[in-house]
Amino acid sequence: MNYRLKSIHSALKQRRLDALLVTCPANISYLTQSPSRDAYLLVTPEGNIYFTDSRYTEEAQAFLKGNAKLKECNGFIFQHIAQEILDLKLGKIGFEERHLPFAEFGKIKEYASGNFDLIPTHSIVEDKRAVKDAQEIAKLREATGITALALEYIRQFFVPGIKEIEIVGELARFIRYQGARAPAFDIIVASGPNSSKPHHLSGDRKLKNNEPVLIDLGVDYQGYKSDLTRVFFLGKISTLARKVYDVVLGAQELAIRRIRPGAEIAEIDRVARSYIAKKGYAKYFSHNLGHGFGLEVHEYPHISGREASALKPGMTFTVEPGVYLPGKFGIRIEDMVLITRKGCEVLSGSVNK
Amino acid sequence: MNYRLKSIHSALKQRRLDALLVTCPANISYLTQSPSRDAYLLVTPEGNIYFTDSRYTEEAQAFLKGNAKLKECNGFIFQHIAQEILDLKLGKIGFEERHLPFAEFGKIKEYASGNFDLIPTHSIVEDKRAVKDAQEIAKLREATGITALALEYIRQFFVPGIKEIEIVGELARFIRYQGARAPAFDIIVASGPNSSKPHHLSGDRKLKNNEPVLIDLGVDYQGYKSDLTRVFFLGKISTLARKVYDVVLGAQELAIRRIRPGAEIAEIDRVARSYIAKKGYAKYFSHNLGHGFGLEVHEYPHISGREASALKPGMTFTVEPGVYLPGKFGIRIEDMVLITRKGCEVLSGSVNK
Repeated sequence: MNYRLKSIHSALKQRRLDALLVTCPANISYLTQSPSRDAYLLVTPEGNIYFTDSRYTEEAQAFLKGNAKLKECNGFIFQHIAQEILDLKLGKIGFEERHLPFAEFGKIKEYASGNFDLIPTHSIVEDKRAVKDAQEIAKLREATGITALALEYIRQFFVPGIKEIEIVGELARFIRYQGARAPAFDIIVASGPNSSKPHHLSGDRKLKNNEPVLIDLGVDYQGYKSDLTRVFFLGKISTLARKVYDVVLGAQELAIRRIRPGAEIAEIDRVARSYIAKKGYAKYFSHNLGHGFGLEVHEYPHISGREASALKPGMTFTVEPGVYLPGKFGIRIEDMVLITRKGCEVLSGSVNK
Repeated sequence: MNYRLKSIHSALKQRRLDALLVTCPANISYLTQSPSRDAYLLVTPEGNIYFTDSRYTEEAQAFLKGNAKLKECNGFIFQHIAQEILDLKLGKIGFEERHLPFAEFGKIKEYASGNFDLIPTHSIVEDKRAVKDAQEIAKLREATGITALALEYIRQFFVPGIKEIEIVGELARFIRYQGARAPAFDIIVASGPNSSKPHHLSGDRKLKNNEPVLIDLGVDYQGYKSDLTRVFFLGKISTLARKVYDVVLGAQELAIRRIRPGAEIAEIDRVARSYIAKKGYAKYFSHNLGHGFGLEVHEYPHISGREASALKPGMTFTVEPGVYLPGKFGIRIEDMVLITRKGCEVLSGSVNK
């Protein structure tokens, strides 16, 4: 059994729980080290059980190995899970309260009919996922490398008249030839005024000369996600755009300089935010400075001004200040960093800014 | 205000609820007729309120029009929602029990501190979505058309040595040039023995001569999803593959012939399943015959042997029998049908089988 599952067994002991019902897909992937889909995992010190349906049986048999026993369930999967808990005579079952819908909680409770208790738990697996091991870091490097290549490759398509969504298509194709499984999220290609919407939905707008194009791209490499943003310019850069670009870049550089083990997260956010404020753009930087990434595009740690905890070696997160001028344009520069023993490494450091 | 929101107001009256908190993204898209993301919707007879954060404000302002009032919430969004309910002095709030995590239910309840009640509801919006209106059918036709073109276009790439994932990339590119926003789900390209896994995760396997390639492709056109499967053959078709193909096709044809308003859903499944059983492949057809599609790839109606309800005009669903021989190959043929007044139309009827 892998060390990740063993660490959950210890966590259960500490909390005096007999089992943890893992329902968050990324947590299941983490614990089974597999591309798990449409599955649930019951972790118990006596052995782990993986529940899925017949569409995935053949695949699951291949990857589960000694980590968990496979149970193929057709029909109501939560009934099978409850029955298994009853058969094992387990009493206190932790569940992931942010990853179990109210209705499913009710169903399991009904099947239990008083024979076991459901105890809400919070982030048992997510907390472990916040610090990456060597194998995970290697995969994140691959994901970052493919993203960097794609941002270089795509420049040839920046010609007036091409649609945003066509650029999305070219990126979606290219990354698969480089070994990525899929984009990590809806690729954002935002041209001209569309770039002022931080999460623009790319569409039919055509690229024009003398406008910025913002590209926010991430890929999934063996389950691990990258997330990178660059702004490109077709033709001439306006004085205002150049000025805003320098403000955002300056804020990012200041923040990155502070990133090291032990640094308070809120302080990193504050450094970037106050620089942007000093330049007069405070109200145009409306989102958090960044977010952790790994098996999910957004995971721990949250990089926000409310986060008092300290950075630890092995954490990976984005640093992405932005200034968005509605109706005009937006500039976001997003890099991916890894906390090292003494400081940090910008995983995406080779990508031109 | 659009007729969909008005129909929810009637549903609330019937159930003696003061409001419905809509948390399912597809339900919110349906009610606001927009590409809503990271948002929540409170529907009340006195007016509807749309909660989102600053990343989406500019986009939401453009599409909400008279349908809902926009509330930008940064920070804890459920606290804003609870506060709004308190301000409006509403008493009985329905929520979507399958689309609200246990933790969020707990938070809202805490913020309510006894001043309003949370009542679980089930499928109020989903039931309406099961029958499509003319505008929805038009979009589904577009989505189907793009998928059909893509399945024709992709044939040129079927050469020994190309990887499954590269074919995925070519499809992901092509559909964007045809007006699709994105694939509707992880495109499945399953070659040779991989085709025996109904939901194969496409990867590095290379296409070989004299093997089948199964492609399961759907696209998102203005929010509406298609879902089509075809099996192609490189080189020669083995006698067994030809035989199984004919069994699956025969089962599908028999099922489609029964599809009309008033037909019992379970019966449609039974017709296909018993034909496959008669041919000796019962245990190799392990999933349901089909599923509804629309704003989601899987929605009502469920086309399963347990579903006693009757088909209605305006319903759209897939008919996709399959026979999967582990270690050998799998054959699935999936078409999309629309229930008409007197029978059914195979939306994907033009796609070669």
